[in-house]
Amino acid sequence: MTATTPAGNGLPYRVPLDGLPDSVRIYEVGPRDGLQNESAVIPVEVKAEFIRRLAAAGLTVIEATSFVHPKWVPQLADADELLDRLGPMPGVRLPVLVPNERGLERALRRGVTEIAIFGSATETFARRNLNRDIAGSLEMFAPVVARAREAGLRVRGYLSMCFGDPWEGQVPIGRVVEVGARLLELGCDELSLGDTIGVGTPGHVTALIAAFGAAGIGPERLAVHFHDTYGQALANTLAALRAGVRTVDASAGGIGGCPYAKSATGNLATEDLVWMLHGLGIETGVSLESLVATSVWLAERLGRPSPSRVVQALARRLNEQEGSQG
Amino acid sequence: MTATTPAGNGLPYRVPLDGLPDSVRIYEVGPRDGLQNESAVIPVEVKAEFIRRLAAAGLTVIEATSFVHPKWVPQLADADELLDRLGPMPGVRLPVLVPNERGLERALRRGVTEIAIFGSATETFARRNLNRDIAGSLEMFAPVVARAREAGLRVRGYLSMCFGDPWEGQVPIGRVVEVGARLLELGCDELSLGDTIGVGTPGHVTALIAAFGAAGIGPERLAVHFHDTYGQALANTLAALRAGVRTVDASAGGIGGCPYAKSATGNLATEDLVWMLHGLGIETGVSLESLVATSVWLAERLGRPSPSRVVQALARRLNEQEGSQG
Repeated sequence: MTATTPAGNGLPYRVPLDGLPDSVRIYEVGPRDGLQNESAVIPVEVKAEFIRRLAAAGLTVIEATSFVHPKWVPQLADADELLDRLGPMPGVRLPVLVPNERGLERALRRGVTEIAIFGSATETFARRNLNRDIAGSLEMFAPVVARAREAGLRVRGYLSMCFGDPWEGQVPIGRVVEVGARLLELGCDELSLGDTIGVGTPGHVTALIAAFGAAGIGPERLAVHFHDTYGQALANTLAALRAGVRTVDASAGGIGGCPYAKSATGNLATEDLVWMLHGLGIETGVSLESLVATSVWLAERLGRPSPSRVVQALARRLNEQEGSQG
Repeated sequence: MTATTPAGNGLPYRVPLDGLPDSVRIYEVGPRDGLQNESAVIPVEVKAEFIRRLAAAGLTVIEATSFVHPKWVPQLADADELLDRLGPMPGVRLPVLVPNERGLERALRRGVTEIAIFGSATETFARRNLNRDIAGSLEMFAPVVARAREAGLRVRGYLSMCFGDPWEGQVPIGRVVEVGARLLELGCDELSLGDTIGVGTPGHVTALIAAFGAAGIGPERLAVHFHDTYGQALANTLAALRAGVRTVDASAGGIGGCPYAKSATGNLATEDLVWMLHGLGIETGVSLESLVATSVWLAERLGRPSPSRVVQALARRLNEQEGSQG
């Protein structure tokens, strides 16, 4: 049986759905959130090439690295060198994660124009990840955000464990809104709501965004960051889009995002997201073919296949076409 | 780091979403659609045990096998023996696939009370799969459905390639409605709309169900059968539920459903579906723990891990808990 292109040109058919936006901004986290969980050392030139390829595929916001202390995340110890190699990339925003004031100083020295801080909605994860309670972490972030804003930087606030916590279990929606509101009050431009362990479902997403709305925080200030651990990320994304969210985090090839098991499914794959968005007639500016080629290229360097369904399906089809031509 | 239960008891939190039903019927296709694509020979006793375990997990509709000629699907040549071993299962419907009148005769001899026929929305797949064009296939099905209905059997009509075809590309919605309406006119009680190659997206699903409605065919007569090849199955299911569909096909562990590549992702995994439905507060009658245990058991017999995200995540967690206890 000769397998030909399932959808003609290998792209999804466009059939719009009422109530959804014309365009969505994809916030690409693969180079930072994906690669920070790699056990192998990735050469800095591979990281730079990865980012260049992502930009060439049409992604305009790419979280490049983290100025965390190398002791905590040795995989990103090359942050300075990476940014030097990249240089300025016109039309592409390259935010970097910054854990504290020392990290911000390094970022400012490199000419970074956009940072992200990483907070937690639960006390247990705050203590484990930030070594202080939620109140203490907000105290730590306050001068970072203030100084960054003074320097004209854009600031994103991540809020993790918004839909469940591996130690605390269910996380009350009111608590998530409370901590999220404080991050925005510190001066964050955008708040990214993270389902760090991937347990959320679409009603939970809808209820959380509505609760932010009731607290005066509209969906234009929110982004969503879903993990596909339980396969729910795209259904949750659909619910978030319906609720008015216009910025969606994703990781090329679905790499990274699950610190609990090395090869586990973690971040929503950018390709799976793009397939749905383009199918819905929503513009992203991304070339799906270029993106899949990038993830296949990276998977070869990481030595294992991408967990993205779209990458698997399109890479397989490419192989079959090559096989049938040979 | 000790991994504890991500969601307390390992089940999703229930947060309902407006506009969705209180309950959904899951039509389990694993024993037929899943196992028919296995290259290894599965002993009949394993198949019977699989079905018994699915029923014990709370599934009430389980497509058991197919009375297709063994020349075409040798994996299901044990259909008679399987049904004999199972015997009657109170409270569980056990439909069987029947390709033609000869298959129906075998089914009637076994005391089957429910059958399914398998049509195609495209000419190319009709010719490849049924060895005749769409009109010819409808002629073949007509006496099967008529005789089955006379005998008091319930009849389901599958319609494949509803969202795209690997040879023809895009499939016009009007064509799908036309062929689907004819299957219902023959006497089918229910029509299952199949995205056989998994390319569909939520707007396409919504538009197709609306087009059936415009033709006088309400969602209560429809089921949806999504493949997760491009990761879209759950988002598409959410769209179908919003459009009023109350019956969803799925395959325990996500087995089977992709004839183009052996280990590829095919059918929507029942576990991933149940996670979303229970998270939405929708009743299914299914015990997720029992179902995952069944898929882990079957995966050991098939010699490879389940492609279901939920099975992977929960099985991993179970291993970690065992490890931390030991």
